[in-house]
Amino acid sequence: MANKKKEVPLTGITVSKEEDFSAWYTELINKAELADIRYNIKGFVVYREWATLTIRKMYKKTEDLLEKKDHLPLTMPSLIPESNFYLEAQHVKGFAPEVFWVTEAGSSGKLPERLALRPTSETALYKMYSLWIRSYKDLPFKRYLSCQVWRYEGKMTRPFFRGREFHWIESHNVFATMEGAMEQVKEDMETTYQILQDECCIPIIFFQRPEWDKFAGAVHTYAADALMGSGKVLQLPSTHLLGQNFAKPFDVKFVDKDGEEKYGYQTCYGPAQSRNYGAMIAYLGDDKGLVLPFDLAPIQIIIIPIIYKGKEKRVLDKANEIYNLFKDKYIVKIDDSDESVGNKYYYWELKGVPIRIEIGPKDMEKQHVVIVKRHDGLRFTIKEDFLEEKIEEIVQNYTKEIKEKSLIDFESQVECVYEKDAAVEAINNGKIVCCGFCSINMDAYHCAEIVEKDIGGFVRGKRVDYEKHEFATCLICGKPAGCTVYIAKSY
Amino acid sequence: MANKKKEVPLTGITVSKEEDFSAWYTELINKAELADIRYNIKGFVVYREWATLTIRKMYKKTEDLLEKKDHLPLTMPSLIPESNFYLEAQHVKGFAPEVFWVTEAGSSGKLPERLALRPTSETALYKMYSLWIRSYKDLPFKRYLSCQVWRYEGKMTRPFFRGREFHWIESHNVFATMEGAMEQVKEDMETTYQILQDECCIPIIFFQRPEWDKFAGAVHTYAADALMGSGKVLQLPSTHLLGQNFAKPFDVKFVDKDGEEKYGYQTCYGPAQSRNYGAMIAYLGDDKGLVLPFDLAPIQIIIIPIIYKGKEKRVLDKANEIYNLFKDKYIVKIDDSDESVGNKYYYWELKGVPIRIEIGPKDMEKQHVVIVKRHDGLRFTIKEDFLEEKIEEIVQNYTKEIKEKSLIDFESQVECVYEKDAAVEAINNGKIVCCGFCSINMDAYHCAEIVEKDIGGFVRGKRVDYEKHEFATCLICGKPAGCTVYIAKSY
Repeated sequence: MANKKKEVPLTGITVSKEEDFSAWYTELINKAELADIRYNIKGFVVYREWATLTIRKMYKKTEDLLEKKDHLPLTMPSLIPESNFYLEAQHVKGFAPEVFWVTEAGSSGKLPERLALRPTSETALYKMYSLWIRSYKDLPFKRYLSCQVWRYEGKMTRPFFRGREFHWIESHNVFATMEGAMEQVKEDMETTYQILQDECCIPIIFFQRPEWDKFAGAVHTYAADALMGSGKVLQLPSTHLLGQNFAKPFDVKFVDKDGEEKYGYQTCYGPAQSRNYGAMIAYLGDDKGLVLPFDLAPIQIIIIPIIYKGKEKRVLDKANEIYNLFKDKYIVKIDDSDESVGNKYYYWELKGVPIRIEIGPKDMEKQHVVIVKRHDGLRFTIKEDFLEEKIEEIVQNYTKEIKEKSLIDFESQVECVYEKDAAVEAINNGKIVCCGFCSINMDAYHCAEIVEKDIGGFVRGKRVDYEKHEFATCLICGKPAGCTVYIAKSY
Repeated sequence: MANKKKEVPLTGITVSKEEDFSAWYTELINKAELADIRYNIKGFVVYREWATLTIRKMYKKTEDLLEKKDHLPLTMPSLIPESNFYLEAQHVKGFAPEVFWVTEAGSSGKLPERLALRPTSETALYKMYSLWIRSYKDLPFKRYLSCQVWRYEGKMTRPFFRGREFHWIESHNVFATMEGAMEQVKEDMETTYQILQDECCIPIIFFQRPEWDKFAGAVHTYAADALMGSGKVLQLPSTHLLGQNFAKPFDVKFVDKDGEEKYGYQTCYGPAQSRNYGAMIAYLGDDKGLVLPFDLAPIQIIIIPIIYKGKEKRVLDKANEIYNLFKDKYIVKIDDSDESVGNKYYYWELKGVPIRIEIGPKDMEKQHVVIVKRHDGLRFTIKEDFLEEKIEEIVQNYTKEIKEKSLIDFESQVECVYEKDAAVEAINNGKIVCCGFCSINMDAYHCAEIVEKDIGGFVRGKRVDYEKHEFATCLICGKPAGCTVYIAKSY
């Protein structure tokens, strides 16, 4: 069975993830046909079939979860008049350098006003909210959009991680009180754990971002950092407490129980992004290719009939029998192409199909089949009579096993330091630094710049779930510490 | 029970559909909160929650059906470089007057090349196809996109029917032979019947469109016309035989079994559009509001507890009991708001919820509940013990019943005519005209113009499934008839 091949076949990945992550990721994207960067606009990428199928499953899970938590979907135009855009001063300052502008249409030429391709939807949506929300009875008002956004990014683009057009879900909510809004922020963080840790098997931790790194227009930003290993982090979904910063310029008001007209308190949140997919495949993948949680795999079980001349029909019949056993419960496929068996193994491992079932004439004689699990490579021989039961068991445990293996304990990544030199050493040793800091307000920005320049990491902010109180002074300036922050390298 | 109200409540529709369709539709859209036209860019509309939920269900059904027929999804950038756009001459001529152009980005100002907001995806996608398709083994190559398109429409926009940004699914396919492509066109027409007639309950008929009315760049266009009643039609999904018209300029080639390099034969098809939703609600709706097929309703069963003072808890407990009976199978909701019972009835009828269950203290004494079906208003009293069984039965038949009522037989709309005056009369009498015509090639364009001017209808083309051969001459010019065509008023 394919033992003629010892060399890596055309479909295999040739670079080790540990040795050169960046080259490994590029090869994974190309060989598993996940994205194509040859589209002829810089920074715009085609997501191919296999990636689209999984991303869609991720979105569906997110949408279902949001709807369970009483968010309803809306469909908004993707263009925003320039005038909307200028209503919230901080917001426009943050996004203006990144906007694509539509200025012309058809044969009639110039449009009377420039239209932004939405970089995010606040300024489009809140104009409508001011028309829709009338009374305290309308609150909480919880909505979401599944859409794409465009940002004229200066940084290097990388498929799924950063591009000039990307797909996401954004939720936008209005409450009668600041407390209500803050409760939503907490719910959003819980939702993020449910999606990223439970479904995608990516370990995360939430930080309250420093003032200089928050969403343009927000009171506070709470962002999930994925723990990508070796102390490196990647920003994933964030949720933003907007307070009344947008409600006032956009006139989002309601008549309260006491008959008075008041401004609403708002939050916004981006639970799903193409970037979640990028983080997942980068984090879980190995040198054979993709590793995918069971629910998110476009094909969950691949059946490989091992065909010897003269015995084709019997083997294919058996393969079909097995296919029929599972087709109503799982996404199953028989690979009866004329590729070699070895190439088929490599190919479906590259694609990350969780379970492979091999069936050949010798197996049939012994009334057994061979099962191989993708994520750990374990190979079983199982009596046909127990096949259904065994597959059920594997399915039940598959994603759980990936999680057990891959969820990093945050504390194990962290090193507490009291001096700058120790911080540099810790960062270089692949650790996340925990230290005292002046504050996370703008007055500490100068210290943060020094962190970036001298330590080679970024201040990720204050941990949300728990704050250590053991640092007397700021790591950088030596003044009394106002808080404890974490510093890490980021993708 | 709500018999204090005889007047139409605030939530009800005040215009009769039969008397003034246009005003009725506008009121339906506003009162049922399906769309909001107050977004501040002309021709751009917000789709609200209730519409978004149904449209998403329609898309899911379409996507599932396409995937069952071996199409796979892709995600493409929504911008297309101007240079791609100019490769197919007919295509650019057709779409140039309708394109929105992105010309500027960020603070860096003018882009080196104008970027089109896709009006349709051929010119983006086929560039990639030429990179992806190599061999006959890659064929047939069947893909689809779920995305939105932008068109700078001159015509009056109307929510869901026509707008400057709309959502659709487009499928794009490549075959080794013209016959293979034609088979796809037939499959597409079958898919359209499955989606529009079977799922959405809209009667349709396919015409091969005349040369002057085909998709820009196609060899032939086959379009579904919805039969909206009284002889009026509305163009819904169409499928296009592209032949090699795009394959040549976009270099979509494959190496055939004989080792020779050949151009592929292509088709494209738009099975789902926001317009399908518009057609459905316009066609099925009545003077009480929306009527929706069971599967497509955002809420399928609404439970209304009828609450008398002192008996609230007992009634609400019973409502919850009923809710629990159905919640795992259907989308159920209890309306326990403090609106009057009558207003609740009106509201959920307006929203088109298929089944209403009423439960009050008197019903509870008699151990029965009341069920009301939205589409025909039938009201049953049923013993509690039989509730589950009865609901199952109603669910099974609900959409079928709508179809029986609403699917118009095409022939019943048609009148065969042999003279122009008779055609004018038939059109004025709300009929679709069937007549002899020179041809549907460009040489008959002059006759088609006269049809539009003098008869007040449009030549919809040749019927695809069956052609009558009983007309000797062209209705307009009297020359020998080359074919039989249908003329109708259209929305």
